[in-house]
Amino acid sequence: MKVNNKYYRSIWLKEKDPSVVLSIDQRKLPFEFHVVEFKTVEDIREAIENMTVRGAPLIGVAAAYGMYLAAYNQPAGNYAEKYFSDIAEKFKSARPTAVNLALAVNRSLDNILDEEKPADRLNAAMQTALELAEQETGYCQNIGRFGLPLIEKISKEKAGATVNILTHCNAGWLACVDYGTATAPIYFAHEKGIKVHVWVDETRPRNQGARLTVWELSQQGIPNTLVTDNAGGMLMQQGKVDIVLVGSDRTTITGDVANKIGTYLKALAAKDNNVPFYVALPSTSIDPSLRNGLNEIPIEKRSGEEVEFMEGMLGTGLKHVRICEEGTNISNLGFDITPARLVSGLITERGICQAKEEDILKLFPEFSDTR
Amino acid sequence: MKVNNKYYRSIWLKEKDPSVVLSIDQRKLPFEFHVVEFKTVEDIREAIENMTVRGAPLIGVAAAYGMYLAAYNQPAGNYAEKYFSDIAEKFKSARPTAVNLALAVNRSLDNILDEEKPADRLNAAMQTALELAEQETGYCQNIGRFGLPLIEKISKEKAGATVNILTHCNAGWLACVDYGTATAPIYFAHEKGIKVHVWVDETRPRNQGARLTVWELSQQGIPNTLVTDNAGGMLMQQGKVDIVLVGSDRTTITGDVANKIGTYLKALAAKDNNVPFYVALPSTSIDPSLRNGLNEIPIEKRSGEEVEFMEGMLGTGLKHVRICEEGTNISNLGFDITPARLVSGLITERGICQAKEEDILKLFPEFSDTR
Repeated sequence: MKVNNKYYRSIWLKEKDPSVVLSIDQRKLPFEFHVVEFKTVEDIREAIENMTVRGAPLIGVAAAYGMYLAAYNQPAGNYAEKYFSDIAEKFKSARPTAVNLALAVNRSLDNILDEEKPADRLNAAMQTALELAEQETGYCQNIGRFGLPLIEKISKEKAGATVNILTHCNAGWLACVDYGTATAPIYFAHEKGIKVHVWVDETRPRNQGARLTVWELSQQGIPNTLVTDNAGGMLMQQGKVDIVLVGSDRTTITGDVANKIGTYLKALAAKDNNVPFYVALPSTSIDPSLRNGLNEIPIEKRSGEEVEFMEGMLGTGLKHVRICEEGTNISNLGFDITPARLVSGLITERGICQAKEEDILKLFPEFSDTR
Repeated sequence: MKVNNKYYRSIWLKEKDPSVVLSIDQRKLPFEFHVVEFKTVEDIREAIENMTVRGAPLIGVAAAYGMYLAAYNQPAGNYAEKYFSDIAEKFKSARPTAVNLALAVNRSLDNILDEEKPADRLNAAMQTALELAEQETGYCQNIGRFGLPLIEKISKEKAGATVNILTHCNAGWLACVDYGTATAPIYFAHEKGIKVHVWVDETRPRNQGARLTVWELSQQGIPNTLVTDNAGGMLMQQGKVDIVLVGSDRTTITGDVANKIGTYLKALAAKDNNVPFYVALPSTSIDPSLRNGLNEIPIEKRSGEEVEFMEGMLGTGLKHVRICEEGTNISNLGFDITPARLVSGLITERGICQAKEEDILKLFPEFSDTR
């Protein structure tokens, strides 16, 4: 999507220098648009862990690029299998909740180890990364196409008045190579001239809504309003939300949705106020091996410092202020589970389905084998 | 309650100088414990508006002290009725949602105007303020007494294991002269040796949970953990919350509860997870004239700057950092409405009742006249 009217993706290979992977430092947005260079496996692993790159689809693609850098820098000798497997494990353990990460790394590892010569392995790793990036982009475009009619329908029902959409965290193009998941239908609707307005949850503790989603939407010229995470319920009570669109880090084959903590609360409010609640996700975020989100999806525990310190601009520099007393006990869960019963539908690259096993399998029969 | 082991209330008259009302500057806690002096009507009105003093019961009492300062500084002449009425209006318009404010101001105004001599009016104003402070303290003690068995029962069911309580915002002694509403049962349980632990919602945008409730509880030695406003649902899903206790700024005679924005979302999660959800409130927070919270309780819209800027410590000073781009559209509603159907019960100074008109009227038959 566009940044100051120039087209970007959120990860790409440096032109004329295939030893360097480029991405956007999401920790500095919206205050600074900084393109960051990754030259080693460790650069990318660290970037995934510290959320320089974030978003379920993007961290999958980033890890595939990480496997590519592993191949680019592979040592001579006969230890390739262990070398690549160890690196794959490193990536998979960087963040536990998003399933895209493991999926991408496993695919890259398989493709690499299918080859024997170092040059072929390098080529396989690069092809896998490029393919995954293309694949996620295509998935997001299709999610946009299939999600668009939901917004169109509301627009017609409202006789062309503005459609108010609530979103949580950032399931935008930054998180997904391009277009985004939850944002793709919004971008498509806006492109088509449908009047939309987005309520953006700030998304504590890291404020991805306030920092990334507001910035993304504003860069594309889409009207938006920042609200605290506490506000969505009241907005729905007041009839100011027509539809909720969120992404997912992992969704079980039965339709339980792991997403940024706080999503479940919005789903409850949507149900209570008859507001449609849709989850936009590529099939790479579906985990066909899981049947119970609450019991089976690992929920990442992150550092309490993310809650204790708030980052923002002071004068012309980014500073951290401590918002509570030193030594405060803090718990910082990264995700929650929205049970399938609260989900109006899943918007996937193959169409919209109910958050139910039989409906998901109709769109993705290949998951029957992997359950 | 105690601050560094010394006993305080959150508002009082200066010893040996009745021209000065003292309170604690809640905007500086927990980083600085600062006792602030009010000498004029305007001092107190401003303190209510800028939240130096906050909390539904406290702003009622503070406004009564403001009416007292009005009497203390009353001009000579015959315009007393207009003088006091104008000041009363000023106080009532300072914050719209809490009903305690109007109730306290009206009571003070009536008592003042019942007298004719300036000295008698001064005395009436002082007596009213002192009585209201005593009354709210007594109410909170009774709320503690009546709420205690709820916690005791859970403790017994858990064979003495720690009772986990979730609270939102600050309905503590700072908000209520002494003891607090939601916190009173917790203080009483702790005093009785029952093991309790409190999950404290940070409460964006002003962070009353992170700043005031954590501080209050820690000062009394009560174990607590700070979480983001997004986390409560997940904690309940994981079975880590035994009961939710919150306060109220205004509750209709039918049991709809206005409280700090985000309360409704926690009530939904409590319902969804069979966690008891209790609202602790003195009868001064009940508005017998209202029957529909969503349609009738005015919801305060506050400045977007509260969301845009986050206050915290940097080095040794309090600083404000901007957490989003300059010029971001922001909406900042102060309260939401928890419908009576989501409330397990109201803990009042006369006992616990269901959030239903007939049950409220059983405890408070005097409200029959004012509906």
